[in-house]
Amino acid sequence: MNDDIVTLAHGNGGRLMRELIESIFARHLANPALDTGRDAAELDWAPGRLLFTTDGFTVQPLEFPGGGIGSLAVHGVVNDLAVSGARARYLTVAAIIEEGLAVALLERIVMDMAEAARACGVRVVAGDTKVVRRGEGSGLYLTASGIGERMAGPALGMGGIRSGDAVLVSGPVGDHGAAVMLAREQFGLRGDLRSDSASVLPLAETAMACEGLRFMRDPTRGGLATVMHEIAAATGLGVRLDEQAIPVREAVAGVCELLGFDPLFLACEGRAVAVVDAARAQGLLKAWRALPEGAGAAIIGRITAPPAWLVLDTGLGERVVRELEDDPLPRIC
Amino acid sequence: MNDDIVTLAHGNGGRLMRELIESIFARHLANPALDTGRDAAELDWAPGRLLFTTDGFTVQPLEFPGGGIGSLAVHGVVNDLAVSGARARYLTVAAIIEEGLAVALLERIVMDMAEAARACGVRVVAGDTKVVRRGEGSGLYLTASGIGERMAGPALGMGGIRSGDAVLVSGPVGDHGAAVMLAREQFGLRGDLRSDSASVLPLAETAMACEGLRFMRDPTRGGLATVMHEIAAATGLGVRLDEQAIPVREAVAGVCELLGFDPLFLACEGRAVAVVDAARAQGLLKAWRALPEGAGAAIIGRITAPPAWLVLDTGLGERVVRELEDDPLPRIC
Repeated sequence: MNDDIVTLAHGNGGRLMRELIESIFARHLANPALDTGRDAAELDWAPGRLLFTTDGFTVQPLEFPGGGIGSLAVHGVVNDLAVSGARARYLTVAAIIEEGLAVALLERIVMDMAEAARACGVRVVAGDTKVVRRGEGSGLYLTASGIGERMAGPALGMGGIRSGDAVLVSGPVGDHGAAVMLAREQFGLRGDLRSDSASVLPLAETAMACEGLRFMRDPTRGGLATVMHEIAAATGLGVRLDEQAIPVREAVAGVCELLGFDPLFLACEGRAVAVVDAARAQGLLKAWRALPEGAGAAIIGRITAPPAWLVLDTGLGERVVRELEDDPLPRIC
Repeated sequence: MNDDIVTLAHGNGGRLMRELIESIFARHLANPALDTGRDAAELDWAPGRLLFTTDGFTVQPLEFPGGGIGSLAVHGVVNDLAVSGARARYLTVAAIIEEGLAVALLERIVMDMAEAARACGVRVVAGDTKVVRRGEGSGLYLTASGIGERMAGPALGMGGIRSGDAVLVSGPVGDHGAAVMLAREQFGLRGDLRSDSASVLPLAETAMACEGLRFMRDPTRGGLATVMHEIAAATGLGVRLDEQAIPVREAVAGVCELLGFDPLFLACEGRAVAVVDAARAQGLLKAWRALPEGAGAAIIGRITAPPAWLVLDTGLGERVVRELEDDPLPRIC
C-alpha cells in the first residue's frame, strides 16, 4: 500500500476510504450542512421554485492555466443554474478516481473546488467516491449537481425569443477551449492564455433585472455557435451574427488559426449569452460592462425570420455556419 | 461514423450529441419536468425539509442477473434518501460514456433506468452526457443525484443510538455482491443468484412509523459489517451480532466459501438495516415481515457498551470482525 497514490482499496467502503474522505474531501469542504457520516444532506427550504441540475466533468489535463477540474465543476453547476435564473445554494460532488492518482493532486483539486465554492457562496453538502482500475478512467472524473433558488425576474426560455431580438455575449469567447488545448503537451505549444472559468452569477443577476430578457445560456461545450444552433433548432428562427462584433482575444484567434479551430465552437466557462428585446439591448450592454465579469461584453447579432440558419456576416459577405459534426476537441470540460 | 456505437462526436455538443440525447435519454425518461433544451429543471417545492444526495455507479458488468447499472443508479439514490427518512422526488443522471459503447446496450440501460424510476415514483428531471476515449472508461459510468421530501417520523442519526438497542436487517445479505461476482466471466461460474437491487422505500416508510427508531442505512459497498463498523466508530459503542441470526442465502454462502469472501462484507442493494429501541424491535420486525420487501427480515444483534468493536457471536464462541482493509470486490456498485 502506497499512501501517496489512490489504490482500489480506497474505494471499497472500508477504513482507507473513510480516511481519504475525511482527510481530503471533508476537511477542505467542511461546512455545517456536510456530514460525511450520512447518506444525504438535510436542508431547510423555503417555499418557492427550486432549480436542479447536474454536469459531468472529464477535462484533460486536470489542471490548466486559469483553473482545474475542481473549480470548473463548481463554476459549471453555478453557471447552469445562473443562466436558468437561479442562485446556486447547495452542491453535491461525486468523484470517479482512477487507481494511481496522486493523493497530492487530488488534494489540490479538492482545495481548488472548496475555494470556488466559497467564492460562489455555495456549500458542498454531500459527495461520493468510487475508485476504478488503472486504464478504466483518466485520473479523475467529477459529477457535480446543484440546487438553486429562482431569482425574481422574467420567465426564461427559448419559447420567448422573437425575430428582431438582440444577442449579447458577456466577454471574449473561446478562452477555456484554447487554454486547455495549449495545456495539452501533445501540441508542443505554450502561451499565456488562461481559461475564463468563473461564475457568471453576477452577469445573470444583472440580466434578470433587465426588462425584455428572453433567454440566457453559458456557451460551454460546442461554444457560442452551438448555443445559436440550439436557438435556431428550437425556435425555427434564424440567427445572424456580426463576426467583427464577436470578441475573440488575439491569442485565441492565433491558436485557432495555427491549429485549424473555429473560436465560435470553442468552450467558454465564464461567459453568458443573452437574448433580449432589441429595445433593451443597449441597457443590458451598459449594465454588463459596468461589472468586472462583463467588461468585454458586446452586442453580437440578432434573431431573424426563418429559415433556422446561423448566418455569419463577415464584413466581406456572409456564410452559413453549420452544426458541429465531428469532434474538434474532446475532454474540454 | 458508425451509428451502432457511441463515438467521440456524440460528446461534442453538436448534432450527434443532441440526437443521442433525444433518441435515447429524453425518449425513455420523458416526463413533464424534463426538458433537454434547458440547463436546469425548475420544480415547485413546498416548504419543509429537503434531502439531497449523490452517488456514482461503476458496476461491471453493466448488466447482471436481477438488474443493471441503470436501475441500480435509481435504487441507489432512492435508497440513500429513504434510509435518511425521505421520499425521493426528483433525480438527475450524468453519464460518462466510453467511446465504442453499443448504442443498443445504452438504450437497454436507459430503459431499465426509466422503468425503475416509474416504479419508485421519481422523475429524472435533468441529465448530462460526456464521451471519453476508448481506454479512459469502461463502457459507462453513471452518477445519479436526488432530492427527496422528509417523511414524518423521528430524527435519525447515529447520535441517537444507545447501548442495548436492537439491530435489524430487512432480508438476506450479500445477494448483489455475489450476483455481480458470478456475472463476471473470469470466475467461470454461473448460478441462479440475482442481485437484490430494489427500492427500500416501503421498508423505510414502515420503520419511520415505528417509535424508537434511531437510525437506518442501506448496506451497499462494504456490506453489513461496514455499516456496523461505522456505527461503532461514530458512537464509541460496540456492536454484537448473532451469526446464526443473520440471513444469508445458501447460494451466497456457497459462493463465498468457494471464493473466499465473507458475506457480511458483500454489497446489498435492496436491504435496509435499522437500529431501534430494544423494546420496539419485535414490533418493527413484525411490520417489516408483513411487507414483500421484508419477508426475510431478522433481529440480528444489539448495540453494547464500549469498546467500539464489532463482535460476531458464532454460536461456538465469538470473534472480533475487523474493518475492511484491502479490496475484496471492486466495481460492485
